[in-house]
Amino acid sequence: MGRRSGRRPGDSGTREAIRAAAVRLFAEQGYDRTSMRAVAAAAAVDPKLVAHYFGSKQQLFVSVVELPFDPAVVVPAIFAGAREEIGERLASAVVGVLEDPEGRRRLTGLIRAAASEPEAARMVRELVGREVFARIAEALGVEDADVRASLVGSQVVGLAMARYIVRVEPLASLPPEAVVAAIAPNLQRYLVEPLPPALRADR
Amino acid sequence: MGRRSGRRPGDSGTREAIRAAAVRLFAEQGYDRTSMRAVAAAAAVDPKLVAHYFGSKQQLFVSVVELPFDPAVVVPAIFAGAREEIGERLASAVVGVLEDPEGRRRLTGLIRAAASEPEAARMVRELVGREVFARIAEALGVEDADVRASLVGSQVVGLAMARYIVRVEPLASLPPEAVVAAIAPNLQRYLVEPLPPALRADR
Repeated sequence: MGRRSGRRPGDSGTREAIRAAAVRLFAEQGYDRTSMRAVAAAAAVDPKLVAHYFGSKQQLFVSVVELPFDPAVVVPAIFAGAREEIGERLASAVVGVLEDPEGRRRLTGLIRAAASEPEAARMVRELVGREVFARIAEALGVEDADVRASLVGSQVVGLAMARYIVRVEPLASLPPEAVVAAIAPNLQRYLVEPLPPALRADR
Repeated sequence: MGRRSGRRPGDSGTREAIRAAAVRLFAEQGYDRTSMRAVAAAAAVDPKLVAHYFGSKQQLFVSVVELPFDPAVVVPAIFAGAREEIGERLASAVVGVLEDPEGRRRLTGLIRAAASEPEAARMVRELVGREVFARIAEALGVEDADVRASLVGSQVVGLAMARYIVRVEPLASLPPEAVVAAIAPNLQRYLVEPLPPALRADR
């Protein structure tokens, strides 16, 4: 045990310190470049404690990766109002998360991790599929709901990449309400407008 | 000089071998994880030759990063025909590049690099801004053309992420022509349909 770094196993703060360090490093550096040793150093704990509390690096990632919003609350709220404004409400929710520093850090961290490495991509895909897309598809309640949810996902991840990660201008400098107005009709189409025959044919 | 690895400086193939190795490693591993040493090893040359021909890692990246299409040819072709089908032609061009293995490798490599590290993001932003967005904006020839080009960019990079990098289902398994049909109207709106007042107000 010892008292290395001033923290002992069993300290109620140790697990949380490791978790916080892992969240930060995965977000800043991506999955692949974040080592268990670096997480331990950032949390000021013995590297063995990271494995003790979280197991493998993959298990650590799965444990600490969290969406910066609660999809069980947000998705029903988006679908609760007038159907012709679903795109607007979804766009507002997405931009709201990404304009908040903590929300942006988490969401762009997920995207960076998914872009960096197939194993992280698989974990992010499963998390988002289960927590977000499945709820959107259920709320839509139509036969092609899963295609619609994944098309929405393509625009949302693209907005996060273009405006917040790569910072393409002038998109990066638009006021948030302009971004909402720009993407809302496109999300509206993906969610509720008729899709072309090519998408319905084989489903 | 010596004959290490069977290649000498001045070999006409040396520069090309380094270039090919760098293209492959940047695409597979991203900017940050690709070292000059690894490029040299993959090209079977002395590491000093990489610096000799290309300078710094950043200079190597800028030298070898190429778009998997010629925007000077592709952009005018997209804008040459009927205006109501620009979205369709752009969607076909994008999906065509991404369905081709070499095109996909290059484009997703650019995106992975941009996601991995701010310095690579800056280089990709400059390349795409200069080579693609500026041409689209010029072809559009309207006042808000630069906003439109960057919104198109958000959907295109999001499609590449969702379908080809993270492989979100069912988007990842749709036939290419269904993907074109799905995104074409959204690209059409970004390119030529009226944008909301919030986007015009401050421009």
